[in-house]
Amino acid sequence: MPNPTAAMLVIGDEILSGRTRDSNMYHLAGVLTAKGIPLTEVRVVADDHASIVDAVRALSAGYSHVFTSGGIGPTHDDITADAVAAAMGAPISHRADAMALLGAHYAARGLPFNEARQRMARIPDGAQLIDNPVSIAPGFTLGNVHVMAGVPTIFEAMLASVLPTLVGGPPLISQSLRLMQGEGDIATRFAAIAAAFPDLSMGSYPFNQDGRFGTNLVIRGTDAARIALAMAELNAAFAA
Amino acid sequence: MPNPTAAMLVIGDEILSGRTRDSNMYHLAGVLTAKGIPLTEVRVVADDHASIVDAVRALSAGYSHVFTSGGIGPTHDDITADAVAAAMGAPISHRADAMALLGAHYAARGLPFNEARQRMARIPDGAQLIDNPVSIAPGFTLGNVHVMAGVPTIFEAMLASVLPTLVGGPPLISQSLRLMQGEGDIATRFAAIAAAFPDLSMGSYPFNQDGRFGTNLVIRGTDAARIALAMAELNAAFAA
Repeated sequence: MPNPTAAMLVIGDEILSGRTRDSNMYHLAGVLTAKGIPLTEVRVVADDHASIVDAVRALSAGYSHVFTSGGIGPTHDDITADAVAAAMGAPISHRADAMALLGAHYAARGLPFNEARQRMARIPDGAQLIDNPVSIAPGFTLGNVHVMAGVPTIFEAMLASVLPTLVGGPPLISQSLRLMQGEGDIATRFAAIAAAFPDLSMGSYPFNQDGRFGTNLVIRGTDAARIALAMAELNAAFAA
Repeated sequence: MPNPTAAMLVIGDEILSGRTRDSNMYHLAGVLTAKGIPLTEVRVVADDHASIVDAVRALSAGYSHVFTSGGIGPTHDDITADAVAAAMGAPISHRADAMALLGAHYAARGLPFNEARQRMARIPDGAQLIDNPVSIAPGFTLGNVHVMAGVPTIFEAMLASVLPTLVGGPPLISQSLRLMQGEGDIATRFAAIAAAFPDLSMGSYPFNQDGRFGTNLVIRGTDAARIALAMAELNAAFAA
């Protein structure tokens, strides 16, 4: 079986308008890298049915897993569940298991389980619920699409619920070397070393510190011995 | 002429691996919203030729403007310029104007203008250079694609150079009302008000403060008088 891959779909006008700074992408990237399921593509789209449907179809067909963030609350602009159901060709309704979960939650708090809150029980047929220990309203997994909330605390809790159900690949290991030399000074030798290790991925990331440019050289791969060998070569070539 | 739209393409393994937290998307979203060029889609792809080519083609065909971030430095993993040229069907070479700019810069600093640094002069035929006051190596505009650096200070400086050349639409105005009520308590009335203002976009964004859920109601649109009218209705319906 080939190694698993992942894509993310962030849904929400508030990200695209600059009102909200997304943090779920950064969190998901780190978690998936550690699990050995490399995040390979991310898309951000508005709260728009056709845009969500198109993106879910493209990403679901292209990757082992798709993680969505946002648009599963009780308000009229929360249209993710219906759009994902449409994209995957699944019927959707107020499902009994989610209705029971939410009904008990609001009853215990003396809050009305009104039409808006019942909207959060709209779950596609055949989907598995994703546990939400923060605010109960569940996410769901339909096929290879994991539908989660946009609020970071809830997104992170739902991801923690989903993660143990996924088969990971070999974890991606990363090591880096920080140099106070500009990329232009190290690029040629760095490219030669990278070419000698085609099984590893090597990147360089410039930074600016007190007006001087420096470079972080990063090696990524799954074989710790090969990474150690490559790091030794980078140290021999560049370190003071 | 219809109002302009924009998409962003973030390029870089370091974002997808979780090593680096992207900040350019948030910056671009705010700047474009103020300019009246709504950011409508974002994609993040790896340093991979085919992935960049596919994304540039799709976004260039779908939106008035595409802004790219990352992959235009001197190292072997900087492949954005060649990929954008391929996507747009333009020849690319070490262009004389960029060679002169960079040559003078490194000569003045006594640094070698070596093969790696010359790589940053690879600019497609027909592209306009984008000024880089931070580190000289230019970005470029080819057709409707604006190719900029990934380092935030340089991305922001390049964007400031490009922005005056773009024709904006009516600026998007946004107003919000912060409530210490959960979304489920306000959703039905909020949906009715939103339906009465089809020319405005209304969204609700839950937050958690000291263990209690609250909601920010946000109205977005281009007509200040209509937004004021809608805000008055929200205040009448929800404010204490």
